[in-house]
Amino acid sequence: MIRFTNDYSEGAHPKILEKLLATNMEQTPGYGEDVYCQQAASLIKEKCKNDNIDVHFLVGGTQTNLTVIAASLRPHQGVIAAESGHISTHETGAIEATGHKVLELPTYDGKLTARQIYDVYINHQLDETHEHTVQPKMVYISNPTELGTIYTRSELEAISNVCRENGLYLFLDGARLGYGLTSSENDMDLAFITECCDVFYIGGTKIGALFGEAVVITNDTLKQDFRYIMKQRGGLLAKGRLLGIQFLTLFENDLYFELSAYANKMANIIKEALQESGCTFLISTSTNQLFPILPNETIEALKKHYSFLTWQRIDDKHSAVRFCTSWATKEEDVLRLISDLKGYYDCYDLKR
Amino acid sequence: MIRFTNDYSEGAHPKILEKLLATNMEQTPGYGEDVYCQQAASLIKEKCKNDNIDVHFLVGGTQTNLTVIAASLRPHQGVIAAESGHISTHETGAIEATGHKVLELPTYDGKLTARQIYDVYINHQLDETHEHTVQPKMVYISNPTELGTIYTRSELEAISNVCRENGLYLFLDGARLGYGLTSSENDMDLAFITECCDVFYIGGTKIGALFGEAVVITNDTLKQDFRYIMKQRGGLLAKGRLLGIQFLTLFENDLYFELSAYANKMANIIKEALQESGCTFLISTSTNQLFPILPNETIEALKKHYSFLTWQRIDDKHSAVRFCTSWATKEEDVLRLISDLKGYYDCYDLKR
Amino acid sequence: MIRFTNDYSEGAHPKILEKLLATNMEQTPGYGEDVYCQQAASLIKEKCKNDNIDVHFLVGGTQTNLTVIAASLRPHQGVIAAESGHISTHETGAIEATGHKVLELPTYDGKLTARQIYDVYINHQLDETHEHTVQPKMVYISNPTELGTIYTRSELEAISNVCRENGLYLFLDGARLGYGLTSSENDMDLAFITECCDVFYIGGTKIGALFGEAVVITNDTLKQDFRYIMKQRGGLLAKGRLLGIQFLTLFENDLYFELSAYANKMANIIKEALQESGCTFLISTSTNQLFPILPNETIEALKKHYSFLTWQRIDDKHSAVRFCTSWATKEEDVLRLISDLKGYYDCYDLKR
Amino acid sequence: MIRFTNDYSEGAHPKILEKLLATNMEQTPGYGEDVYCQQAASLIKEKCKNDNIDVHFLVGGTQTNLTVIAASLRPHQGVIAAESGHISTHETGAIEATGHKVLELPTYDGKLTARQIYDVYINHQLDETHEHTVQPKMVYISNPTELGTIYTRSELEAISNVCRENGLYLFLDGARLGYGLTSSENDMDLAFITECCDVFYIGGTKIGALFGEAVVITNDTLKQDFRYIMKQRGGLLAKGRLLGIQFLTLFENDLYFELSAYANKMANIIKEALQESGCTFLISTSTNQLFPILPNETIEALKKHYSFLTWQRIDDKHSAVRFCTSWATKEEDVLRLISDLKGYYDCYDLKR
Repeated sequence: MIRFTNDYSEGAHPKILEKLLATNMEQTPGYGEDVYCQQAASLIKEKCKNDNIDVHFLVGGTQTNLTVIAASLRPHQGVIAAESGHISTHETGAIEATGHKVLELPTYDGKLTARQIYDVYINHQLDETHEHTVQPKMVYISNPTELGTIYTRSELEAISNVCRENGLYLFLDGARLGYGLTSSENDMDLAFITECCDVFYIGGTKIGALFGEAVVITNDTLKQDFRYIMKQRGGLLAKGRLLGIQFLTLFENDLYFELSAYANKMANIIKEALQESGCTFLISTSTNQLFPILPNETIEALKKHYSFLTWQRIDDKHSAVRFCTSWATKEEDVLRLISDLKGYYDCYDLKR
Repeated sequence: MIRFTNDYSEGAHPKILEKLLATNMEQTPGYGEDVYCQQAASLIKEKCKNDNIDVHFLVGGTQTNLTVIAASLRPHQGVIAAESGHISTHETGAIEATGHKVLELPTYDGKLTARQIYDVYINHQLDETHEHTVQPKMVYISNPTELGTIYTRSELEAISNVCRENGLYLFLDGARLGYGLTSSENDMDLAFITECCDVFYIGGTKIGALFGEAVVITNDTLKQDFRYIMKQRGGLLAKGRLLGIQFLTLFENDLYFELSAYANKMANIIKEALQESGCTFLISTSTNQLFPILPNETIEALKKHYSFLTWQRIDDKHSAVRFCTSWATKEEDVLRLISDLKGYYDCYDLKR
Repeated sequence: MIRFTNDYSEGAHPKILEKLLATNMEQTPGYGEDVYCQQAASLIKEKCKNDNIDVHFLVGGTQTNLTVIAASLRPHQGVIAAESGHISTHETGAIEATGHKVLELPTYDGKLTARQIYDVYINHQLDETHEHTVQPKMVYISNPTELGTIYTRSELEAISNVCRENGLYLFLDGARLGYGLTSSENDMDLAFITECCDVFYIGGTKIGALFGEAVVITNDTLKQDFRYIMKQRGGLLAKGRLLGIQFLTLFENDLYFELSAYANKMANIIKEALQESGCTFLISTSTNQLFPILPNETIEALKKHYSFLTWQRIDDKHSAVRFCTSWATKEEDVLRLISDLKGYYDCYDLKR
Repeated sequence: MIRFTNDYSEGAHPKILEKLLATNMEQTPGYGEDVYCQQAASLIKEKCKNDNIDVHFLVGGTQTNLTVIAASLRPHQGVIAAESGHISTHETGAIEATGHKVLELPTYDGKLTARQIYDVYINHQLDETHEHTVQPKMVYISNPTELGTIYTRSELEAISNVCRENGLYLFLDGARLGYGLTSSENDMDLAFITECCDVFYIGGTKIGALFGEAVVITNDTLKQDFRYIMKQRGGLLAKGRLLGIQFLTLFENDLYFELSAYANKMANIIKEALQESGCTFLISTSTNQLFPILPNETIEALKKHYSFLTWQRIDDKHSAVRFCTSWATKEEDVLRLISDLKGYYDCYDLKR
């Protein structure tokens, strides 16, 4: 069984394990107050071209989302998100469990628009009974989105402007940020994201680390007492050094971006082969997630040897699936997948 | 600087790192549904001599405490704990953040008694206005406690009986359970704890793992949908295998108990040397935490070379400190500490 | 200014004030343990034809909704509701503030269908990642809905069956229940609602009381410790007698239904006059809320003398408005409104 | 049975009912936006000698406490209170249900001292692990306290100073404020309380109203969006006018203070009679609550004709009870109680 199920099927990139081994018997303070966390934070500040940011390290994405949102909002305030956003769909109501409503908006491609956000804001403002409704105060976007799509520089800028003009916090979930920033269609960098967002995070779990998300806070209001909230929500790792060491390794020599680019490249090989075969996609992506529409028979046949997600029913004979690559995807597995797909092509016709 | 600050100053026991390395490139499902978590759970069931228990793996102690309590209680119910309990003092109100009051009881040594628990229960029952007060429903104890003390078999049995007779859940925080079960004064084993408790956990973070706590649920009511709550509270690790691999390593060949016994032994060497010097202790312990009372000058002098906690002011010339050992404590460091302490003894007199 | 804004613009029906006056100096126990609450509960049990129900009295609708839902659900469970449901839109996130997600479904007329509910349930069950999503456990419906529509006997029965077969609690918000049960299109009674629901309430605030909602719990599981949750959420009125006295008055001699029927009659007079004039409605209703579509000029002109809600933009020249009647609506005001509407009819044409 | 159980055994003062009747058929906007709420707020601003305060009306005390605290604190912050404080003991964990820990301090007489508050503050500040503990941010005091005692001007001023100097909010629960301000020992007025507190409330439920608490917010930060939180917590009464009308009536011609003084006078008659008989008290009070220590036989005998609370066991033969008077207490009942007490005096001896 070869897994294209997700980007966290293996352990960590070998360089990370090496570093963990090399430092294993050193004694350090706990809870992120060690030298490795400090070094990793410094390196991230450098990459973000901003020294006036706070960097914190948490273990996982849901934990990060709920901690950031709980730390930012008053009880009557909610967070705007795409209906397909991770906080809307796949966190078992983690945000609501902190007391806040997720104000979900429909999207075609997982991306919110500046216009949508403004409309929610202004409709709330103009509503005479606004005190009876949740006050929108934060905007949550993911880049790449849960559908593998990415924001352009101008789209993010427009969203950022709407947020700043109207007192909304902008929070970017970067669980797969590396894949976005190394995509062939990308026109942004960490420094630009730092400029645009009040808070965002750089995902490690899905890009080569054992685990870990690096939260960057740019807004002074949101910086205050953030570690208290981390502790309260169970997110202050005792051996915090593990997070520092991992992010230090990922950002020394830009390993993070190298791994991300590799995964994108693997995905692109599959994408081009499928396109050549005339296959269509649920949505066009340039990152490590592909959503091809395949005949159900093809899917059944593939599942004997490959593990991947069946994403969505398209019609009674076709479904969209998700192939996901990572730093650990072997090129030989990619080639085998392509070859098998082409084999099925002759039988079933990938075209519709 | 030599650290006797806590039991999580280093990384993991080398055998754990070896196993992580050896399995690193294997592909597994996420979120604890991999073969290593299954194997580790099986092994723990064996050690607990009970096949009818659920085993879940979480990353840290605060996360585990808040997840277990949130999963167990209805909104109007509270959890009884010692004033010195971890959930009472050192989790930034994590339990209250899930909506539940911690009903704190004073103790001399960090240990609750069956009598105290019964009194809280019966006073609530007899109170005519009981609907206006928090309903006690769960009892939280730690073994060893935050003061290094341990429960005896008969004490735990008495507590368990009071709980069962009165419909209270018994939850044992075993963040340092190994140190307790290998203490010279201990008369319990995992099987007995499994019999007595509705839910407890076996701590890995403080005993040789990079991180990790193994939750054991014996009460069928508390088993239901526990993984939902783990996910909601940010405690379902994406690469769940990391937890499985660690606990598998710790419980194969009883490494867990071996490491615990070693730490206790190191602590005991210090304890005996101090006793010989006539030093008194805040409280008598037989696990990996010692609370000697030292002259403030001795403390100042020691702090130049050693890191440890100043625990509590005793009088204007003396304070209690905490020395904490672990699987990673070097015997040479212990001997050097003793030697230095004896040196100071001549100057300052450890006796009062 | 004549108000057709809502059904709570006046104080209470005179008989209620009379009874409050007559009993004012009597001494009673607090918190709903007085004889009037007992008598009112008995009367409601009689009307519901079920002696095995619990009856509690709360002050307002939002308070009731959040108390019932908080009392019923575990943390990972959510409540299914119409997008237009009161808990979805007009309670400032009160349900989320208790930690629970509202699973919102689109509707045409404010009414959920048994099929929609089943689909949510079964999709969750079949989802392989269901532990990562909120578990649907309760269904919230309003009768009449926020759009003035009502469920038929067979619709409610179908919903109740889906809920029972699949372990979902059915909760009916009856803030305007009287208007529903006395509507010309209604084919249900209190006894039938009692049979179908696990919990529901009979609204007083909008039907003649100063305030008050009578919660009826039929499901034994939901009965347990309900008063604790009421107290915790600030819903246990000190002078609970005020609620008992009001509901006693409303249900003696069926005043509740008499007042409801009167409001429906007043609404119907307006409805028929508008229909005669060729006016169309956003939605067809037979209760005390009407949603006619009027030319914007007509609306402007009317607003000089009448207060009512502009509900929704229809096109650039028309909007839907809401006229709401109550037990206190004067027939002369209704006739004046009709006359004025007919006057505007000549100028602007209510037809489109 | 004559009730000295509490100060909310009857309905409302007749003048309030008169006013409710006189205005009953007027049409007003809902949710506190009516003219009566405005007039009552103006009158209260006048009494507080401060025009720059916000006044809101809620239904009950627990509701008010949880709404104010939820509106004021971030998730990691807690509220300091006396162990005997209402939020500590008698609200079924309402504060914890909003996510906040109550930091309980022991007191002799229900009153916190400036020193105690400072100690909590400074110990938290100096604690190296302060991020692992709840941050004290608000101080909750009651005046009169739950033990009937009152703060002096200088005590309140000292507390206020400690709070202001250290960034703590001061919140005064005035559920029985009138009794305090008309006590013979009182040296404060509303204007002084307004100066000292960030937020406080003037209780109506226990002093002549059917229900109602008037919240006064002086701190601009706490004013923001308070009505949203009221709505979210179920505290925005639909017929808000009922609260406006009641407080308008209570503060026109100082009826509030007149009723309070009357109740204190009734209590004082009992107090003096008991003192003459040599009876001692659990605590000395000058408001409407008395806590005499009586022989258990006396208590048993009295309970045949009087309802009152048995407060606390003193020794095997004596208990402290609570007698509570109100605006509605009849002087004849007071005299009868005294006479009966004196009768029992001859038999049992109130002295110890």
